Amino acid sequence: MGNIFSDRISDVPRSFIREILKITLDESVISFAGGLPNRDLFPLEEIKAATAKLLAESGKDVLQYSSSEGYRELREWIAARYRKKEMTIDPDNILITAGSQQGLDLLGKTILNEGDSVVIEEPGYLGAIQAFSIYRSRFHPVPVNPEGMDLDMLGQVLSSHTVKLMYCVPNFQNPSGISYSAENRCGVADLLRQRNTLLVEDDPYGELRFLGQDKQSFHNLIPHNTVLLGSFSKIVIPSFRIGWIAARHDIMEKLIIAKQASDLHTNYFGQRVILQYLKDNNIDDHIAKIREEYGRQRDAMVSAIREYFPSEAHYTEPEGGMFLWVTLPSGLSAMEVFKKSIAVKVAFVPGDPFYVNREQVNTLRLNFSSVDADTIRTGIRRLGDVLKTMV
Amino acid sequence: MGNIFSDRISDVPRSFIREILKITLDESVISFAGGLPNRDLFPLEEIKAATAKLLAESGKDVLQYSSSEGYRELREWIAARYRKKEMTIDPDNILITAGSQQGLDLLGKTILNEGDSVVIEEPGYLGAIQAFSIYRSRFHPVPVNPEGMDLDMLGQVLSSHTVKLMYCVPNFQNPSGISYSAENRCGVADLLRQRNTLLVEDDPYGELRFLGQDKQSFHNLIPHNTVLLGSFSKIVIPSFRIGWIAARHDIMEKLIIAKQASDLHTNYFGQRVILQYLKDNNIDDHIAKIREEYGRQRDAMVSAIREYFPSEAHYTEPEGGMFLWVTLPSGLSAMEVFKKSIAVKVAFVPGDPFYVNREQVNTLRLNFSSVDADTIRTGIRRLGDVLKTMV
Repeated sequence: MGNIFSDRISDVPRSFIREILKITLDESVISFAGGLPNRDLFPLEEIKAATAKLLAESGKDVLQYSSSEGYRELREWIAARYRKKEMTIDPDNILITAGSQQGLDLLGKTILNEGDSVVIEEPGYLGAIQAFSIYRSRFHPVPVNPEGMDLDMLGQVLSSHTVKLMYCVPNFQNPSGISYSAENRCGVADLLRQRNTLLVEDDPYGELRFLGQDKQSFHNLIPHNTVLLGSFSKIVIPSFRIGWIAARHDIMEKLIIAKQASDLHTNYFGQRVILQYLKDNNIDDHIAKIREEYGRQRDAMVSAIREYFPSEAHYTEPEGGMFLWVTLPSGLSAMEVFKKSIAVKVAFVPGDPFYVNREQVNTLRLNFSSVDADTIRTGIRRLGDVLKTMV
Repeated sequence: MGNIFSDRISDVPRSFIREILKITLDESVISFAGGLPNRDLFPLEEIKAATAKLLAESGKDVLQYSSSEGYRELREWIAARYRKKEMTIDPDNILITAGSQQGLDLLGKTILNEGDSVVIEEPGYLGAIQAFSIYRSRFHPVPVNPEGMDLDMLGQVLSSHTVKLMYCVPNFQNPSGISYSAENRCGVADLLRQRNTLLVEDDPYGELRFLGQDKQSFHNLIPHNTVLLGSFSKIVIPSFRIGWIAARHDIMEKLIIAKQASDLHTNYFGQRVILQYLKDNNIDDHIAKIREEYGRQRDAMVSAIREYFPSEAHYTEPEGGMFLWVTLPSGLSAMEVFKKSIAVKVAFVPGDPFYVNREQVNTLRLNFSSVDADTIRTGIRRLGDVLKTMV
């Protein structure tokens, strides 16, 4: 047989992270490579109780097929949570998805034609690059800095191209850990307000702030332009794959069709267990625990970097989330560092996959949420020793 | 804002079944419209036990992110089950999906370019029409008859077009309930063997045979050409959305990339619960119960049709599965029948959505798996009374 594959699948970068994660299956490797939440914080006993109660009280109801939109009461819970943050979103404008990643796929399906222009952050979330690549969009990377998007560059791109969609993670971005300032958000909103560009605000980490003040969601600044993605993976548990999209009515109609065609509906049992958990427990107390622990882990990483990295290495100091971003002296390839680092049993993700069409970059991503503080110090010390031999 | 939607989403037919199902939320309506398994047969106590045991023994392991391919031991179980049917499939060639529907989406993603020719059955599974429409394929419907595919027509289509993909449900087809005979399967295989056409063999109902003998899978006849889809929705429970694709190595590589981009991985907790259930129970005993009950329900429907329908109506007599297909005298629109039938509180699916670009057809689908035998008789009697006023 000859080549039977679609053109689109040839365009999708294979996940380098996947390959790295195989290396880190070796338990003697200290891994800052993954993007996993800290499993010590999973509410196991509460999930046990929720599961047992649900099966006892609702029985076969929770084992049958369900609706494409997702369970109504769960969508109402999400809407109520937004209300607490002074965001007005109707449950009818919320679609339950198989994690945020599926939200990206459904948006690609419903919005993107081949060659459509998409603005992404540089560095940007690998999963978004993959998801939109499937729909053969044309990427326009706009650099992010500690304040947020480079507004001059964004303005230039928006003026010179018809940008259909812009993707961003304004809170504790993956991979960089940076957050958009209030001013930067207003600047982005001003540039988009009068345009026919859809802003995809992906917010998986927004609740995980351990420093500073919450900022306005784009949904409040430019509601008509904004589609919001959320997830229970980082605040409850990830294995159920329960996330959501909040979008205006006309987009929701199309997303539901795309959802049906993609997988009929999201795992209904999981939706019900998550809701039962949310009803029977105080999620704010739980999130407070996660924030506290991640804050400690982040502090351990920042202070170890300060102590052990050569002064030529720069790094972000995240106010929340799970990642920190390191910039090495220019000319030093993070991929080369990776090879030496693996030899001393420390893993991370070289920056390369977070760029579109760039290689041998001098940046790298470190995850601090899945490793305890002592191990963080050990790993950063070893990585610092490697770096000192290379700068 | 102007139109921001992709061309592809405009091509997808909205599910008429979805609209019908809203009508049938009225509990006084006898519904033959759905495609739901009989919930009385769900193994609730066994699922309770599996869930509790899994959380007690594996704890936080089953709450974390997991691999895109799906849980290895579950893939091994599926491979072992195929071995019992004398089908050789390696666990590495199995990808766990969010139900069979996602299998269709992933195949569309990895195989279909815009305008690529796809053979589907006429009538054909609505979900496949939707899934492939997203990738803007060109459909070539080939009629099915009680023996299987119309081989002459299939031969003509294959000779005059470069067909990239052919989709079929050879066992107890949705919507018609027919099964391909052994001869018909060989005929299809002979036509495809030397061609660069991929056969998608969707087999959600294969285990639900209550009459006759099992037939060879296309996977055994033309393994290189065949991609096999399976699901736990009809033999265990549907709400977890756990299905799979079995495909040869080069296709699997691309499917894994598409899976990652689509939703990272399938609900891991659900995979583990299903596997725990399968390990602790005898699935053959459970399937035997389903077969027996569906056989009874099917018999009730066939005998009620024989008694109450006008003799001008023809119908299939399925050997398994969940559906039966009725052909009315030509010129009589099933959609018109539907309107009168709803007035006497009986619902079904008019044939229209199972065809590509055909309307006001004289066929309709009846589901017998989700209604008990007595209710089936009552509903069929009412529907017969309506039909007698119209033929």
